[in-house]
Parts: sequence; structure tokens; C-alpha cells
Amino acid sequence: MSQNRSRVSIQVTILGANSALPFHGRFPSAQVLRSGNFKCLIDCGEGTQLRLSQENIKRNKIQVVFISHLHGDHVYGLPGLLTSYNHFERREPILIVGPKGVRDMITQIFELSRVHLNYELSFREISKGEAIPTVFSDGQLSVRAFPLIHRLPTWGYRFDHNPALYNVRPESIEQYNLTIEEIVRVKNGQPVERSGSTVPHDHLAFPLPPSLSYAYCSDTIYTESILPYIKGVDLLYHEATYQEALVEKAHETKHATAMEAARMAKLADVKRLLLGHFSSRYKTLQGHLDEARPIFPETYIAEEGTTWEIG
Amino acid sequence: MSQNRSRVSIQVTILGANSALPFHGRFPSAQVLRSGNFKCLIDCGEGTQLRLSQENIKRNKIQVVFISHLHGDHVYGLPGLLTSYNHFERREPILIVGPKGVRDMITQIFELSRVHLNYELSFREISKGEAIPTVFSDGQLSVRAFPLIHRLPTWGYRFDHNPALYNVRPESIEQYNLTIEEIVRVKNGQPVERSGSTVPHDHLAFPLPPSLSYAYCSDTIYTESILPYIKGVDLLYHEATYQEALVEKAHETKHATAMEAARMAKLADVKRLLLGHFSSRYKTLQGHLDEARPIFPETYIAEEGTTWEIG
Repeated sequence: MSQNRSRVSIQVTILGANSALPFHGRFPSAQVLRSGNFKCLIDCGEGTQLRLSQENIKRNKIQVVFISHLHGDHVYGLPGLLTSYNHFERREPILIVGPKGVRDMITQIFELSRVHLNYELSFREISKGEAIPTVFSDGQLSVRAFPLIHRLPTWGYRFDHNPALYNVRPESIEQYNLTIEEIVRVKNGQPVERSGSTVPHDHLAFPLPPSLSYAYCSDTIYTESILPYIKGVDLLYHEATYQEALVEKAHETKHATAMEAARMAKLADVKRLLLGHFSSRYKTLQGHLDEARPIFPETYIAEEGTTWEIG
Repeated sequence: MSQNRSRVSIQVTILGANSALPFHGRFPSAQVLRSGNFKCLIDCGEGTQLRLSQENIKRNKIQVVFISHLHGDHVYGLPGLLTSYNHFERREPILIVGPKGVRDMITQIFELSRVHLNYELSFREISKGEAIPTVFSDGQLSVRAFPLIHRLPTWGYRFDHNPALYNVRPESIEQYNLTIEEIVRVKNGQPVERSGSTVPHDHLAFPLPPSLSYAYCSDTIYTESILPYIKGVDLLYHEATYQEALVEKAHETKHATAMEAARMAKLADVKRLLLGHFSSRYKTLQGHLDEARPIFPETYIAEEGTTWEIG
């Protein structure tokens, strides 16, 4: 039988993974996540529109921006990005998902700047009491928000790609002389009959590709309360603002260390761990890896410009 | 007689002179002006703090930020810059001068981001009716705001360096056996007597250095109403968003062309003209120079990273 031709993946490109300031060639938090035709931003620190240009990523196809919290290094690039779309003649709507307050921030700024957008801007604000809401879904990709613990309301996001439709084996169409209606049935996992009996579904279609998952956790203190939401993901981005020598400062400012991120990855049984949100005091990040890898070997640095593929 | 040793100048460094978007290696509007110990920012587009780092300009000594208007490409870098000062342990106060609304913009953002500054932040908002206010003065440098004509309230700024104190000729101290009190009198331009008659002041002190002046006009339609405020300045920065082929678009969006900026420089009898605020449609800016120089030969491009010295 031929190989499953459908190639599904999630790609995450790091635009910025520094905390607070642009420094050492690093930038405030922002990532682009792509899966099939879906493209979104995760956080949007100051300079994100510049980083998109530098990485040659077309900005007009971005459909959603997920904001973790309202600290400047995660959101101060949003007003500029949204205003720029006017110059790019954007017409497609855009959705902003984020904590309560993100709508006020943008609308108050735009009122003072007298910005009138060419396109539809909508908001999905997450309130503190909400029980793990699904904040986005397009049938294949779904995104859930879960609470992190930081100095102000902060949300992590889990992206799950669950392929809904089977891919029909091309040779089976001829072999079983499938009609258009039957092909649709096969795609949906429904039975097809020949000579009074059901044709085994795996003769007609490839197995569903595995589901793919990514979780984004920035900023947060180390907290096992997030374990249920990040359990078993293919890739976990967890903040690691500090190295272990500054664990007290981490706790005080509600941030995490590289070792804590590694412990979280191990407990959650994830496949790979990406460290990010680095304090500008660290000129290089080898120290973070040296501390994390003995606990969780599959640890990597979310370096600006790198793309991480899942699937 | 020895040369006047006191060297006074105004230096203007261009951090960004593009309109709207970062493009072609150009950045949104921001400039650093320095004169003696005084250092300020003029406009603060998104990414200004990054541009300061790239140009190796120490940010902590900036005392004032002058904002022309509340369009994003002139102000969206301000929240990030002010927040960053917390990380730089700033303790010195900072003054924001700008149109009415700039205080609301910053305080509303900081409320939502829960920013608590380590230092004193004050605002001098300029209201529409005010008659050419002096918005800053430290005795030697004074800054006046004057109205430009754009799509929302917009202010130009004129910087005048008027040296207040004479420099005493060192040889005269011995020759006339000047007391400390007399030296102070000479510095202040007051008479000193010897043998019953006044010593000519120019025997005791160098002539006052000439006054120096810089005017910043962005964004504005071509308007001769600004002539009284920019008359005779040593350096005029005037926006030139478009070339002449798009003069109608310029008028429609309340911007100016390179030829219009040159005409303004000629009418105002300034020494040099700096063009800026370029539309991203122009990949290179030679066309701007080609149009402006036949009208005003001393025209230059406000290229990112260049420093313009007056005095």
C-alpha cells in the first residue's frame, strides 16, 4: 500500500523569547504558529511587526493573536501591528484572544490615535473564573486557554491538531469503484458495503495521522496546577527567566528557572521542552541548558529565528 | 587674544525617519537631541528603545520626550521605553511633552499592564488654544511648541540654544587682577571698573557664542502658517512623506512633498533642510533630493544613524 500522503504539522517560529527588553540580539515575546492554512501569533511584544519582516513572514495571513497577559513585553507590539494592517490594505477580520483588559487597551489607544481600521477586529477576552475555555477552533485545530500564575492574570495556551477526516487511499477508488458519495463516507469514517458485507475501513483509507499538540506557558511561577493542561504535549514552551542561582528572585517575581521548567516537562511527560523568556542578565544561554538537560534531556533554547516542527 | 574655548553645539541623531512602518532598514520617527548635558527624545515610534541600543546611545540620561502627535509611528514606543527604565533602575524624573491625550494614553496602558514606575513621570500636555508655549527651558536651551496641520492635533518643536553667560578671557584675570566677584560680574555681562572708568567688556570676555536653533516639523501639510516659528533656524527637519507625483495624496492625507519642504526651507531662510517621514513606497530617497535641491540646495536626507551638528 502507498504511504499516507497527507502531511500534517504544526510549526512554531520564535520571533522573540527575551524577557522585558530587546537585548543581545533577542527580542520580547512573540511566536508565529502555523498549521496547514492556519496562521496565528502568540504574544506580540514591541517590535513584533519588525521581527515578522526580518523573518520574511507574511503578516496578512495571520488570523488570530493570542495574548498571554498585559505586560508590555508581551503586548506592546499589538497596537502597531494592527495599525500597520491598514497600510497593507488588509480586509480579512482578525481575532484577538487574551485576558480581560486587552480590548480596553487597544480601543483606548486607537481612540487617542484616531485609528479607524479597514477590517474587522474582534476580541475574545478570557475572564478569571472561566473553566479552561476552548478559545478557538477551526475543526482541525483547537486552542484552549488555562491559567498560569504570574503577577497579573495570565493565560497559557494549548494547541491541539486533531485530524477530523480520513485520507482515502487512491488505489481503493479504482479497486472498489467508489462513488463520490462513498468517498465522502470513507473520509468521515463511515462504512461502505460491497457484495453485502462491509469493506474494512483500513482498506479504503489511511489511518488518521496522530494528533499534534503544543503548549505555551509564559510567564509563570513553577506550578503543578498546570500539569493537566500540558500533559503529554509534543512540544512545551515553558518560561525560564532565571538560572537556579536566582531561584528566590524567580519566586519573588513569579517567574521560573530552567531547572523548574525541566522538572515540569518531565512530570508532564512531554516530548520536547523549549526554554524561553530569558532575563537580559544572561548574555548566553548555555547555562540554562546545562541546568535543564540533566533533568530533561530533550530541552532546547527558543532562539530567535528558529522554527520548531511538530508532526 | 586666545580663541573662544567654549564649544557649544546641538546634535541631532536620527533613530527613525520612516512613516508608518519599519521598512527598507528605516524605522518610525524618533530622534535624540543633545546639547551640553541636556539630552531628549523627539518622538518615540515603536522600537525606539531598540534603536537607542543599536546606536549605542545611553537612554538613562534622557530627561524629556517631546511627542509631536498621537499617531502610532510617533508614540507607540513610549510605553515600552518608560517601562524599561524600571529595569535600568532609573531614579531620575522624566518629563513627557505632547498633545493633550498623551497622559491618558500612557496612564491607561500602565494601569492595564499594572506598571509601577521607580521614578517620577510627569506630563506637560499642550492644549489647542495655547499661544506658542515655551514647553521647556533650562536657562540655556528653550523649547517652544507651535501648531502643525495634520489629521489630529500635532505640534512642531523649536529648540533654541541661547548662551546666557560670557566666558571670561583667562589672560584678563591676571591683567586686571579680577576678584571672584568681578569674574561673576563679567560672566553676567556686567561692568567692571578700574581707575574710575569701565573696562570694555570685550577686553574681559569672549563674545557670546551665536545662538543655535533647530525646528522639527512632522507631520504636517505644507502650511506657511508655521513660517514665524521656523524663521532662520540653523537646521529644519520637515516631513516629506511623498514625492511630487503624489502631491494630491499628500494634501489628502495632510502630508507634504519634498518640493514643498524645500519651498518652506527657502521661504523661512533656514541654513539647512533635513527631509524625513518617508513613505515606505520609496525604496531609495534620491528622488526626494532630486526634487528638493533645485529649490533649496542645502537639503539632506534624515538617514537612520546619522548625526547632524549645529554650531
